[in-house]
Amino acid sequence: MQEGGGTMEIREIRLEELDVERFITEEVEEISSVVADGVAISALSGGVDSSVVTMLAHRALGDRFKTYFIDNGLMRDGEPEHIVSLFKDLGVTVQLIHAERTFFDALRGRTDPEEKREAITRSFYRDVFGDLVRQAGAKYLLQGTNYTDVEETVAGIKRQHNILAQLGIDPEEMYGYRVLEPLVQLRKSAIREVAKVLHIPQEIWNRPPFPGPALAARVIGEVTPERVRIVRNATSIVEQELSHRGAFQYLAILHEDKVTGVRGGKRDYGLQIEVRCWESTDAKTGSPTRLPYDVLGRLAERITAETPGVVSVTYNITKKPPSTIEAL
Amino acid sequence: MQEGGGTMEIREIRLEELDVERFITEEVEEISSVVADGVAISALSGGVDSSVVTMLAHRALGDRFKTYFIDNGLMRDGEPEHIVSLFKDLGVTVQLIHAERTFFDALRGRTDPEEKREAITRSFYRDVFGDLVRQAGAKYLLQGTNYTDVEETVAGIKRQHNILAQLGIDPEEMYGYRVLEPLVQLRKSAIREVAKVLHIPQEIWNRPPFPGPALAARVIGEVTPERVRIVRNATSIVEQELSHRGAFQYLAILHEDKVTGVRGGKRDYGLQIEVRCWESTDAKTGSPTRLPYDVLGRLAERITAETPGVVSVTYNITKKPPSTIEAL
Repeated sequence: MQEGGGTMEIREIRLEELDVERFITEEVEEISSVVADGVAISALSGGVDSSVVTMLAHRALGDRFKTYFIDNGLMRDGEPEHIVSLFKDLGVTVQLIHAERTFFDALRGRTDPEEKREAITRSFYRDVFGDLVRQAGAKYLLQGTNYTDVEETVAGIKRQHNILAQLGIDPEEMYGYRVLEPLVQLRKSAIREVAKVLHIPQEIWNRPPFPGPALAARVIGEVTPERVRIVRNATSIVEQELSHRGAFQYLAILHEDKVTGVRGGKRDYGLQIEVRCWESTDAKTGSPTRLPYDVLGRLAERITAETPGVVSVTYNITKKPPSTIEAL
Repeated sequence: MQEGGGTMEIREIRLEELDVERFITEEVEEISSVVADGVAISALSGGVDSSVVTMLAHRALGDRFKTYFIDNGLMRDGEPEHIVSLFKDLGVTVQLIHAERTFFDALRGRTDPEEKREAITRSFYRDVFGDLVRQAGAKYLLQGTNYTDVEETVAGIKRQHNILAQLGIDPEEMYGYRVLEPLVQLRKSAIREVAKVLHIPQEIWNRPPFPGPALAARVIGEVTPERVRIVRNATSIVEQELSHRGAFQYLAILHEDKVTGVRGGKRDYGLQIEVRCWESTDAKTGSPTRLPYDVLGRLAERITAETPGVVSVTYNITKKPPSTIEAL
């Protein structure tokens, strides 16, 4: 395990050299020894990284570990309740925190992608998580940062790693806690192997990656409750239609641009949804899945019929690079 | 022939009842008799409608008919010169009018599609064509309005027919000319038959429709010389790759929304181009052409590689309705 801060000195543990049982034993012991008789907390997103971290800390600390699912209003349909229920089955009590208004207030009027991301990060750490840390009396925060996050931060592609430092926040000084990152030496493929041995269900370790800013990463322009409802609905349809195809990732993006449509025989401006579906092994490169046109047609038909205001649907046909998996 | 103004009383001449030779003879006679020893002019766009009108008026009036190609800066690559040269081969002298600055000045700062359209229409009639009418001493303006334009205007889908009336302009009072619309009883399929008999080359009567506002109809947001260059370049690529496939229409749209891309290994926001390719017989309904993925991939690769700033390309998968052929 490495504590947050340095990046350049982190050594990758490659999938082929990973001894999963030993890794789990060592990380559980390390968490026990570092936290000692203190309290640690984590924020569970339902992604494989935070799920594995949560299971490791639960094993190491039992009741002295608390985990929270923060509903920021930007989650997919039914996601918060579903994740809480999955972890209940694993013996872990997850507290569901309703913080939708805090996030939407912070997002109001913001259209710049960097500003939106920062509003979400600040709301999360400063307004919501800071309170939870104080209430729990926690001195340690477990985070699911992985090796790819570190690499992409170094390369300037992502800005996910070490978010607090990027915000100019020293977590120990500001909140009185230290950040622990048990997965920082592993890539996603290795983390999945750890997840399996920890009995985390397949739908978590085998599901497509979901971005930190959640559906806000899929709304171009201002993120309002109404616009999130639209992209949430389109996302449900995309996931229903594409989840069985084994693609690396599939998503719906709500555009800010309006385009002409016909409604009730009259010309009318409406919204456009962009669908992306990716073939990739490591997210570093990718190409659009060659979806049959019947599938594309059904997507367009359902999205326009079931999502009020949407008159147009596109499918992204660009490789990464020069595109990226997500739009923002 | 009908003179501009009324719409509801116009009777369609259907393709199967059209006697092309007789139609040409009658329209040529009617133009001769209405214009008598006056002067008439037309603005040639290179579309089949204005091309047929130009040939009819040329037959009827000879030197007393003048036709102009107005370069508004919004045309496709090489289009103005090419159209002038085609008509030279048909014995018709077309005057090429350079008015790019007038149009870009009128478009500056405008992002609303209706305002952009109106800026183009006003620049055309008030600033450029008004002068030409006065210089030519013309009393008659020949326009290529067809039956579908009339229908769609009545239905509220298009606002192309009777543009002057929509602007609250009485052309006779304001400019001293009357509008003649010889094609107002024909649909596109019938106009194509007339074009063939008039020896207009196939590339004109068989080419996909091109919108009145030209490439401005394919730029979401502000229309600047730089943004038109980008969509013009993407349009060239789309036409090169798709023109042999026999689709009804194929086009590139420059979006205003920016999306993430990777350039030189770094994350960077860039532009998105949307490609549409339509199967349709009458433009009233349509569906996306089922282009092979190799073709889609080549389009995305060429557009991102050859158009500076573009990092993402989508393909529209929506039917009309609820979509429309063009985006604005």
